[in-house]
Amino acid sequence: MGKTFIFGHKNPDTDTITAALAYAHLKNELGVKAEPVRLGAVNKETQFALDYFNVKEPRLIVEVPENSDVILVDHNEFQQSVENIKEAHIVEVIDHHRVANFETKEPLYFRVEPVGCTATILKKMYKENDVAITKEIAGLLVSAIISDSLLLKSPTCTQEDVEAAHELAEIAGVDLDQYGLDMLKAGADLSDKSMAELISMDAKEFEMNGSKVEIAQVNAVDTNAVLVHQEELETEINKTIEGKNLDLFLFVVTDILNNDSEAMALGKAKENVEKAFNVTLENNRALLKGVVSRKKQIVTNLTEAFK
Amino acid sequence: MGKTFIFGHKNPDTDTITAALAYAHLKNELGVKAEPVRLGAVNKETQFALDYFNVKEPRLIVEVPENSDVILVDHNEFQQSVENIKEAHIVEVIDHHRVANFETKEPLYFRVEPVGCTATILKKMYKENDVAITKEIAGLLVSAIISDSLLLKSPTCTQEDVEAAHELAEIAGVDLDQYGLDMLKAGADLSDKSMAELISMDAKEFEMNGSKVEIAQVNAVDTNAVLVHQEELETEINKTIEGKNLDLFLFVVTDILNNDSEAMALGKAKENVEKAFNVTLENNRALLKGVVSRKKQIVTNLTEAFK
Repeated sequence: MGKTFIFGHKNPDTDTITAALAYAHLKNELGVKAEPVRLGAVNKETQFALDYFNVKEPRLIVEVPENSDVILVDHNEFQQSVENIKEAHIVEVIDHHRVANFETKEPLYFRVEPVGCTATILKKMYKENDVAITKEIAGLLVSAIISDSLLLKSPTCTQEDVEAAHELAEIAGVDLDQYGLDMLKAGADLSDKSMAELISMDAKEFEMNGSKVEIAQVNAVDTNAVLVHQEELETEINKTIEGKNLDLFLFVVTDILNNDSEAMALGKAKENVEKAFNVTLENNRALLKGVVSRKKQIVTNLTEAFK
Repeated sequence: MGKTFIFGHKNPDTDTITAALAYAHLKNELGVKAEPVRLGAVNKETQFALDYFNVKEPRLIVEVPENSDVILVDHNEFQQSVENIKEAHIVEVIDHHRVANFETKEPLYFRVEPVGCTATILKKMYKENDVAITKEIAGLLVSAIISDSLLLKSPTCTQEDVEAAHELAEIAGVDLDQYGLDMLKAGADLSDKSMAELISMDAKEFEMNGSKVEIAQVNAVDTNAVLVHQEELETEINKTIEGKNLDLFLFVVTDILNNDSEAMALGKAKENVEKAFNVTLENNRALLKGVVSRKKQIVTNLTEAFK
């Protein structure tokens, strides 16, 4: 039997990268040959965590060898997965997102739980399998929880996530708040990003009632520093809309200190953003008060508006 | 909060009915208001189990109230579920089949494991939640394992299923082999079935690479007693093909004593049956040696042939 490839979604974030690393570690401890891989560049926030805990990033891949055994972590929708996912043999899914656009020929181990972070499920799996969590793995997993929950402030964050974060921070030997803020700030440093990078660095595509929707999100300490470039951002977004034939592109700039988001919407279905959040777009923009979670606050409301 | 409806697939079999009953029992024990319901008639095999353990069948429903919380057991594909599944709020899925044609707006608890029977997963969940399995529930769960595994003989049957079956039989106070054979024979009594019933009593529809495929399976002690009616069966099958615009209807009669199946294939894509099982249809029929499992042996091979 060959090795099993473990990977998260395209445009990898901290949960995706660390979930691949941690689950491959757990599998190896259990005697299964597994390699963590990634489908895109490591972002600054993730790099901060990897550097802090001195862990090497997973290998970058574009495709998996045909008929490989693969495990998807932190995603299940095929459009977010490896290009040739339909040629792979999916043996497991460990995720915390909605389930959609996923299909296998055969039964598999499919574990999705409505928690804030894949890391929280993986932490449980270490325990279920009686494998000790090392300092490094704990550091990676707590980084993922901090990232996905904006330091436990997102509405996606459950009691289980909170408890896991505290326990993992202790094993990792870090102060949760201090380490968390340092890591988020490292990720929110957008100073060297081009406009094209800003709108693609954490972008995900969704199908909503037959429409193609892309939602990009960046975290910022100062949202104005990003939005001052509106004109150039719109030019890039319109290029993407045309290239991918999108019905809507929603660009969300989340203020990590105040926990609000500024949204910029383009595309022929942009009125659905107004419907979804009960706001009026002015100059293609609106403030989304208290909105920080793409999954729980943006995708759900927008999917409803597309019905 | 209203109650949660728990149900298995259309054309309910023993695993589907007992999974709804057992999981509703577990949920109630855990303080969640849940009602087991069913989407079709109780078959003779299931009725045997219900009578033996003196358990009342779940209530029959056609639709769930709009926006109800629902839990799907023993299935996940929407075409096998309640008619208005898209108007429901799916909070959990507990299943052991492939995952396909399933979609939610929001994250949920989705647990699929590659074991032979939903009952095996439920047995584990009782343990995980520290809830004792009653004699009645054990009887229902072991009946489901016997049914889905043809008394532990199907290739879908895993070591976990075998162990669960023995443990549950003990709690239920039955001799596994004797009770199992009695139950299977009760289910294989087809003497009072019309042709229309035979081809629909355990039929499931699948989408395979854009084609509509329906696979019906019946268990028999004497396959010839069924197949002697080929002409009338074909008339009924052709009506179904026309009515549902199917590309293929595969009728499988499984010999529960010898563990082979006789297949009858109709529809414009019937050559895919020859491809899938490396057989030649004669008079629309072929013997499928050693084939007893729709899920593991029929659906997988046929899906491959449709590629």
